[in-house]
Amino acid sequence: MTQKTIACVVFPGLTPLDLVGPVTMLGMLTWMEPEYELTVVGARIEEHETDAPLRITPSHTFDQVRDPAVLVVPGGAAPAFRAMTDKALLGYLRAASASAEITASVCSGSLLLGAAGLLKGKRATTHWTVLDLLAEFDATPVRERWVEDGDVITAAGVSAGIDMGLYLVARLAGQDAARIAQFGAEYDPEPPFGPLDWDAAPRELFAPAAVSWVTEGLAGDPDLSARLRARL
Amino acid sequence: MTQKTIACVVFPGLTPLDLVGPVTMLGMLTWMEPEYELTVVGARIEEHETDAPLRITPSHTFDQVRDPAVLVVPGGAAPAFRAMTDKALLGYLRAASASAEITASVCSGSLLLGAAGLLKGKRATTHWTVLDLLAEFDATPVRERWVEDGDVITAAGVSAGIDMGLYLVARLAGQDAARIAQFGAEYDPEPPFGPLDWDAAPRELFAPAAVSWVTEGLAGDPDLSARLRARL
Repeated sequence: MTQKTIACVVFPGLTPLDLVGPVTMLGMLTWMEPEYELTVVGARIEEHETDAPLRITPSHTFDQVRDPAVLVVPGGAAPAFRAMTDKALLGYLRAASASAEITASVCSGSLLLGAAGLLKGKRATTHWTVLDLLAEFDATPVRERWVEDGDVITAAGVSAGIDMGLYLVARLAGQDAARIAQFGAEYDPEPPFGPLDWDAAPRELFAPAAVSWVTEGLAGDPDLSARLRARL
Repeated sequence: MTQKTIACVVFPGLTPLDLVGPVTMLGMLTWMEPEYELTVVGARIEEHETDAPLRITPSHTFDQVRDPAVLVVPGGAAPAFRAMTDKALLGYLRAASASAEITASVCSGSLLLGAAGLLKGKRATTHWTVLDLLAEFDATPVRERWVEDGDVITAAGVSAGIDMGLYLVARLAGQDAARIAQFGAEYDPEPPFGPLDWDAAPRELFAPAAVSWVTEGLAGDPDLSARLRARL
C-alpha cells in the first residue's frame, strides 16, 4: 500500500477552527482509508500561538513532509498577513503544492496561497471581509462556500473549512465516505438564528478590522500592505 | 468592570473540534464584550494529546480559574471515557460548576458532567452513538442539537459545539452579538451532501466503535465499563 500524506499547515497566530475543521473530516478519512496519513506540519514541532487562548503543536516539520498528496492551509487575522512575509512558509507551500494532487485553503489561507504565487489565473474564495484582496494575486474572487478550480480548492471564512473538508473526503474517497465522516462529526448544522442574512452583514463593523489585519500583519512589507489596503 | 471568566476544559485525548467550536464563538464574544475573558484550562499548562495529529496547550491551570462564570467541557472517544476516572478533573468540574452561571458540554463531554454528578434529573444530549449512556447518570437523554435545562446546556456530537457556542453568545450577550459572531466565523453551513439523513445512519459501523471507546477508556473501572456497555 502506498501511503498518501495529507499535510495541514500551522503558522504562528492562526485561527484554530480554520485548521481543526478540515482536520476533523480528514481524520475520519484516515479511519476509513488507511492509505491516507494525516499530519499537521509546522516550521518546528513546538507550540504555536493561535488567536485563541490555546497553543497548537504540529506532528511534523515541513522538512518531514516534503511531498504531501494533499496540502491544506488555514488562515487567520493579522498573523495570516504576517505569514505572507515568512519566506520559509511560502517556500514550503510552493514545494508541497508542486507535488500535491490537491492544494486547499480555509479563510485567509487562500491569500497565503496567493502570496506564494499559487493562485494565478484561478477562481478562488476567502473570508468575506477580504475577498477583494484575491485579485492582487491574479486570482478571480468568487463568493461561494468553497471554490474548486482544478487542483486548487479554497474555502470561505473559518467554519467553511468543515464543508470543504467534507468535500475533500468525497473527492479523495467518494460520497459514501464523506457521509460517514459527516455522521462521525454529527455535522447536521443548526445555527440558532438561521443562516447568515448577507443583506444585514455588519460591514461597517468588520471593514476597519480587515484594514487593521493588513496594516498590523504587513508592517514589515509596507509596499504589499499599501497595495492590499487599496483594494479594501 | 467585573471580569467574568469562561473556562473551556482540556483533558488528554480530547477531540479538538469539541473544544474549538465553542472557543471560536466565545472568542468573538470577548471581542464584543470585554467584560468576558476566555480561558482554556487544564491540569497543567503543557501539551495535551488529542485524537488528531496535533497537541493543545491550555492558557491556564484548573487552580488558576476556580470560579468561572461559564464552564465548557468537550468530549472525545475512548479518552473521554478514561477521563471519567480522573478524580482531579471531575473534582474541578464539580467545583467550577458550583460557581458557574452556565455549565456546558459538547459531545461526550456531557458524560463527563454525568460522571461528576452534575446531570442528575437534567435533560441532556451527547453524541448520537452514546446517547443512551446518559441515563446511567440519572439524566434524561434527548435527541436535539443542543439541550438547555436551567444552567446546564449540553450539545450533540463534535460539530454541535459550534451551534451551542452561538447560542451561548446569545444567552450571555444577546442575539445581535451572536449574529455578529456568526458573521465573524462566516458560519453559513453548506454540507456538500445536505443535512444528515438519520434513516440512513451507519449504526452498524459506529456501534462497535462506541463499545470499544467504553471498553478501552474504562479499562481502569470495570464496573462502570460494564454498566455503560449494558446500555449500548
